[in-house]
Amino acid sequence: MIKTDILIIGAGPTGLFTVFEAGLLKLKCHLIDALPQPGGQCSEIYPKKPIYDIPGFPEILAGDLTKNLLEQGKQFEPGFTLGERAETIDKLEDGTFIVTTNKGTKHHAPVVAIAGGLGSFEPRKPGLDNLEIYEDNGLEYFIKDPEVYRNKRVVISGGGDSALDWSIFLADVASEVTLIHRRNEFRGALDSVEKVGELKEAGKINLITPAEVTELHGDGKIEALTVNVDGEERRIETDHFIPLFGLSPKLGPIGNWGLEIEKNAIKVDNSLNYQTNIPGVFAIGDVNTYPEKLKLILCGFHEATLMCQAAYRIINPGKKYVLKYTTVSGIDGFDGTRKEAPKAVVQSIQ
Amino acid sequence: MIKTDILIIGAGPTGLFTVFEAGLLKLKCHLIDALPQPGGQCSEIYPKKPIYDIPGFPEILAGDLTKNLLEQGKQFEPGFTLGERAETIDKLEDGTFIVTTNKGTKHHAPVVAIAGGLGSFEPRKPGLDNLEIYEDNGLEYFIKDPEVYRNKRVVISGGGDSALDWSIFLADVASEVTLIHRRNEFRGALDSVEKVGELKEAGKINLITPAEVTELHGDGKIEALTVNVDGEERRIETDHFIPLFGLSPKLGPIGNWGLEIEKNAIKVDNSLNYQTNIPGVFAIGDVNTYPEKLKLILCGFHEATLMCQAAYRIINPGKKYVLKYTTVSGIDGFDGTRKEAPKAVVQSIQ
Ligand SMILES: Cc1cc2nc3c(=O)[nH]c(=O)nc-3n(C[C@H](O)[C@H](O)[C@H](O)COP(=O)(O)OP(=O)(O)OC[C@H]3O[C@@H](n4cnc5c(N)ncnc54)[C@H](O)[C@@H]3O)c2cc1C
Ligand SMILES: Cc1cc2nc3c(=O)[nH]c(=O)nc-3n(C[C@H](O)[C@H](O)[C@H](O)COP(=O)(O)OP(=O)(O)OC[C@H]3O[C@@H](n4cnc5c(N)ncnc54)[C@H](O)[C@@H]3O)c2cc1C
Repeated sequence: MIKTDILIIGAGPTGLFTVFEAGLLKLKCHLIDALPQPGGQCSEIYPKKPIYDIPGFPEILAGDLTKNLLEQGKQFEPGFTLGERAETIDKLEDGTFIVTTNKGTKHHAPVVAIAGGLGSFEPRKPGLDNLEIYEDNGLEYFIKDPEVYRNKRVVISGGGDSALDWSIFLADVASEVTLIHRRNEFRGALDSVEKVGELKEAGKINLITPAEVTELHGDGKIEALTVNVDGEERRIETDHFIPLFGLSPKLGPIGNWGLEIEKNAIKVDNSLNYQTNIPGVFAIGDVNTYPEKLKLILCGFHEATLMCQAAYRIINPGKKYVLKYTTVSGIDGFDGTRKEAPKAVVQSIQ
Repeated sequence: MIKTDILIIGAGPTGLFTVFEAGLLKLKCHLIDALPQPGGQCSEIYPKKPIYDIPGFPEILAGDLTKNLLEQGKQFEPGFTLGERAETIDKLEDGTFIVTTNKGTKHHAPVVAIAGGLGSFEPRKPGLDNLEIYEDNGLEYFIKDPEVYRNKRVVISGGGDSALDWSIFLADVASEVTLIHRRNEFRGALDSVEKVGELKEAGKINLITPAEVTELHGDGKIEALTVNVDGEERRIETDHFIPLFGLSPKLGPIGNWGLEIEKNAIKVDNSLNYQTNIPGVFAIGDVNTYPEKLKLILCGFHEATLMCQAAYRIINPGKKYVLKYTTVSGIDGFDGTRKEAPKAVVQSIQ
């Protein structure tokens, strides 16, 4: 059982910044995310695109924002349960919560902050028979750890940035990379499209278009695929099949937690601190709704900050917290580090 | 008469970010500030100190945050009335407002956003006779334009960072710089104290401590000062006297505008968009108060963003605004510039 002060569901920008604000209040956080990496929409959908409306950054790539937020919170040593979906919530008699994932991992905390964005990112699956047999047995919809593919044969299917970028990356890792797409045209960043062209030239990526995988073969794990190449059937021996057809967010199981839902989002009390109808459960960032709500990153930052104050009072009943400026008080990390502004000196000049 | 869409009172971080968010909605802003430069507390009190809780910046100097915010908003061409205090507000029959400063400058706008922080920064004045005669006639409490002092004799009085830093800066501009302080010890950044020591050694700053200016002389403008140096009177000829004893914020005239005030701050409706009890007048950032309010920079950013949506509806009645992501739609500046993310290509690979 994982124990923490604030259990955060969703490691998007809102969840990540919560770690920092909670840390200032000496509260420890643990994050659950269905994705294999933190960053939410920023890292899954548009990591290489610039955002222009993060205050203080005339421009920042979504992937760099994610990196910065991880760096900003790292001295508060957040825990992560990645690649798992929060499935159920149980309120114990003492008012604390147990949240269990689809893989059975249990988390125990007095405060739950749902920062689930548009929902848990679920892969779009190909329409093939026997998918379940092969899932995690050579058939993967995410790449969690590229080292799994070292010196293995890999077939990637898809026509967007993920398919292009992972083909490029794995060309140096796998023994053989085959990229299959049902059209001749790919849709992605110009340099990714060009790079795949170069790797194809150099014989480091096999490109097969227009083509579609139609059957999976293998005894309990992927051994080969049947591919329809422009009307003709071909058999390809491979160790892994990775269809990258995009992820779509689904509010999913959280919809059944007894929370008030409106327009596919969780209603919260924005006049105070973004608590839901269940005391001790908060919803912050894109996942919540209230009058005048804007689904913007900067709004999630504010909501997270106010929510942490409420969490502090639940966890430290009766204790009063006096706001301190980071500039004035510095930051004491849970890892023993300290950051602080250079002190003024009081000194006579000779 | 200066005309604009949103008249912002206060050019601190909240006011500056409002310019950007309003610009996204094609609304133009004009800012009034009592200080000669934008940045509010960040530029006036701690420009060289790091802030650790701006989301996405593990650390940023307050002065750099100000610079970045100015850069982020510059394509929306904000107007500035600096060095003047907003004094009165009048509501016209058509519901628009006229705001007049202490120097008589008039501003006309359908929406007023008070982003006045802890109040208008007012200088602490020395306890001397005839101050009024000399104010702006050789006696200045702020340095608005250092060029005014080129090849002039200047006496600065004070023992903190402002006195140290301006003495250093003017050592290269003025013909003569004298720094007077009533104690031997200065209080400031170590490198500033050391630098003043070096400039004193090099004969570029005259340092007189412990000393106090006791009388001002001159016919309509400053010509000389009487200085009490450790009990002994001395006369110093000079063109300028600049006492830098710090600035203290005062809510001041805004307190008489008919706004609901609580704990020296303006009450707003935080369940919607930070409007005050006067429709069309909003209060954002440190200057407002509501249940659970935190006086933090990141909160002002969120408040400014929601407020702009309300301003849009007042200025464009009946028009519906659909939120656009900057990443997806790019930014069209009022100056004709355009920022946008590199587009994806759709292209076959040969
Ligand atoms: C193309 C594009 C461009 C954008 N441009 C901008 C922009 O310019 N400016 C701006 O401010 N915003 C922009 N946005 C929106 C911005 O990305 C979101 O506002 C932001 O990501 C919301 O952050 P969040 O942390 O609340 O949620 P998310 O980033 O959505 O993260 C939520 C995370 O929670 C996880 N999750 C949800 N439910 C569960 C569960 N049950 N179990 C486990 N994990 C779960 C999801 O997998 C996800 O990783 C853009 C969005 C897109 C798609
Ligand atoms: C030493 C110190 C350290 C801090 N550290 C942090 C930190 O680490 N993190 C954090 O988030 N915050 C910190 N703060 C607080 C932060 O600076 C404020 O929250 C922020 O400056 C508020 O921004 P604002 O734009 O609302 O108001 P301000 O920055 O106060 O700006 C308001 C401006 O309005 C002007 N004004 C007011 N009334 C009038 C009028 N009638 N006419 C003309 N002009 C007027 C004032 O002159 C001023 O320039 C710190 C503050 C101090 C002093």
